[in-house]
Amino acid sequence: MAITARPEVISLAGGLPDTSTFPPDTFAAVTTGIARHSCAKALQYGPTEGLAETKECIQQVMAAEGMHVDPGHMIVTTGGQQVIDLVTKTLIDPGDVIIAEAPTYPGAVPTFCSYQAEVVQVDVDSDGMRIDLLEQMLDRLEGEGRRPKFVYTIPTFQNPAGVTMSLERRQCLVQVARERELLILEDNPYGMLRYEGETLPTLRALDRGVYVMYLGTFSKILSPGIRLGWVAAPPAVLEKINLGKQAADLCTSTLSQLMVQAYFERGRWRDYVDSLTELYRARRDTMLDALAEFFPPEAQWTRPCGGLFVWVTLPDFIDTTDLLARALRENVAFVPGEAAYLDGRGRNEMRLNFSACSEDDLREGVRRIGKVVAEQVALYGTLTGEHRVVRAPAEEAPAEDAAVADVVPIKRRASR
Amino acid sequence: MAITARPEVISLAGGLPDTSTFPPDTFAAVTTGIARHSCAKALQYGPTEGLAETKECIQQVMAAEGMHVDPGHMIVTTGGQQVIDLVTKTLIDPGDVIIAEAPTYPGAVPTFCSYQAEVVQVDVDSDGMRIDLLEQMLDRLEGEGRRPKFVYTIPTFQNPAGVTMSLERRQCLVQVARERELLILEDNPYGMLRYEGETLPTLRALDRGVYVMYLGTFSKILSPGIRLGWVAAPPAVLEKINLGKQAADLCTSTLSQLMVQAYFERGRWRDYVDSLTELYRARRDTMLDALAEFFPPEAQWTRPCGGLFVWVTLPDFIDTTDLLARALRENVAFVPGEAAYLDGRGRNEMRLNFSACSEDDLREGVRRIGKVVAEQVALYGTLTGEHRVVRAPAEEAPAEDAAVADVVPIKRRASR
Repeated sequence: MAITARPEVISLAGGLPDTSTFPPDTFAAVTTGIARHSCAKALQYGPTEGLAETKECIQQVMAAEGMHVDPGHMIVTTGGQQVIDLVTKTLIDPGDVIIAEAPTYPGAVPTFCSYQAEVVQVDVDSDGMRIDLLEQMLDRLEGEGRRPKFVYTIPTFQNPAGVTMSLERRQCLVQVARERELLILEDNPYGMLRYEGETLPTLRALDRGVYVMYLGTFSKILSPGIRLGWVAAPPAVLEKINLGKQAADLCTSTLSQLMVQAYFERGRWRDYVDSLTELYRARRDTMLDALAEFFPPEAQWTRPCGGLFVWVTLPDFIDTTDLLARALRENVAFVPGEAAYLDGRGRNEMRLNFSACSEDDLREGVRRIGKVVAEQVALYGTLTGEHRVVRAPAEEAPAEDAAVADVVPIKRRASR
Repeated sequence: MAITARPEVISLAGGLPDTSTFPPDTFAAVTTGIARHSCAKALQYGPTEGLAETKECIQQVMAAEGMHVDPGHMIVTTGGQQVIDLVTKTLIDPGDVIIAEAPTYPGAVPTFCSYQAEVVQVDVDSDGMRIDLLEQMLDRLEGEGRRPKFVYTIPTFQNPAGVTMSLERRQCLVQVARERELLILEDNPYGMLRYEGETLPTLRALDRGVYVMYLGTFSKILSPGIRLGWVAAPPAVLEKINLGKQAADLCTSTLSQLMVQAYFERGRWRDYVDSLTELYRARRDTMLDALAEFFPPEAQWTRPCGGLFVWVTLPDFIDTTDLLARALRENVAFVPGEAAYLDGRGRNEMRLNFSACSEDDLREGVRRIGKVVAEQVALYGTLTGEHRVVRAPAEEAPAEDAAVADVVPIKRRASR
């Protein structure tokens, strides 16, 4: 955050939505309404599980994504991050296993680690988490007498890889969960931000909440600054999460909860999501175009159908953590890939965000990164006498069993 | 919370400030200002450690309580509760020792337990925590080769006991901390709500932040619904707390932080605290009068000089957890004393809050509790043939060495 706050830096690092699109008049109308009708309530403690009126808004969001949830089966939280924290706190004793995707959300890594979980990662490809590899992993763990406490997945517009789990794999994962009585934490911040293709059912919708704990948030469809998320989970788990929530921060901001309620009451929240979708779609296209224009041919990247991120794979002699230092000298930032793994992989990968910047800044930011990448490629060529160490792959998809290779083969070559 | 939400129940249970006293016009003016000048910022993620402008407000509050703190030495948190959570998370491994007061803040107990801390409690009397007993405890632990990770104390207008640590004991505690290199977590939500007597320096002011971690909050001087607190701590600890905060909820609500900033900019925040102080002083007096009128002579209670709570000790044949069930049938609630101990003590004690209700409700609530208490006393008399098992103590203070007795002898007989 400190780096991205420097005004001269174009940050493609954060996962920030563009909140400048939210109409200040609406903000003023919403808060003035609260002042008039529920000032004392907004300023007061609320129930740990959240306000009933906020849960109604959550039901609307979940219905829009094809899910029906009883208000008694959810807890309103201080952003989606708190769900990851509370679920981990609730389920993990030191040494317990969590299965995550490779790569996974960088912000989940320190949370899992803070409870001393052992995190094993299962590769994703362009169709999301490889369920065949997941099953192999589960068999291996079972052979060791170990049961993972839960599987953490972002099936839709994954952070950071930008890929989406196919319907077939979703059905398969839910089936595996049922057969093996395995809890899943489905993290779905970006589901409504789809720029192309057909909507897929969430894991929660397929499973109906038996083994799937569902994490939702208002951060990407309204505002991250109000810190409002939620978890829908099986009652036995929810009860423990509630105790954890009480110990963690007593209750979620009543002000934020009433903001959402008053905003939803105006009945235009989906229009705003639609406007975000249009905006971000154009920005994604700009970023993909800029990557094709400014990145050397050795680079590959994903082409996300929604969400906020593109995942770039560079030649394996480039270390993106080192590269970031050079990039910052050019006043541009990204997230080095290493942050998305717990096993040291990802050194030649990077996450780029396209939702937070104007199209001009996106082009310029990608140009600057492309420049330092090209310099590194040229430098390596000079040192080794080769110009290209890693050749661009053939257009065919890599063989399935190559998926366990050191460089995760999820990165499709973008059309240029 | 569920019980207190029933409208027919007079709740003396919560620690709720009276937010109906906050002017809706001010709320509207503050939020309209944010809409006009910083809408996008209010809706966006902020830095994990908190906004610089919010830290300036915190500096003002701390200055009003006699402390100077560098903005780099504090982190803005999601309410004061999160400070307890993060400090515990940062410092405690399972089995580590925390020293707390007896009784202690009921909300801290599940937090300490959730990290599997071993909590030992040191009695308080009318001058706050017994530092002589603390030293005995430290010696005992040292003999066992154990070092407590920190001492948790609410020195001013303690929750739940309503007592305040004397200046001499404050100096002594800071001295003990320095000599033994022992961290202290000073929880000070009520310091500005003083109804009589002279302001005492905080432990943080005496120690200057070497061993004292300081927890502050806007909950009792402005609003708990915005969930805004802070921790000031030695840099080495703060760094770890920052990592914990990031894993827990990324950052504190930007909306709430800008609310505080905009509100403080108006320059009247101390006037509001003064108005609360006047209001709560009158309510405290009403509660003390009602206790004298409606509680049987076997009961004793504290006479707080500030804060939100009175602590009542009943004859030891009365179990306040059982009593609560009866009280709820009379539509009145309180916190049973057991919640403030980890060792099963407190069964004949209860916490009463006087900040949340009107004077009429306070009188009526105390009358209803007094009625069920009197019924229990009479029932016991019938069963045993005695009318009074526990006699009201003599006016003299109990002998010092009686302080370790089963019933914590901090309860002064109130003047009636």
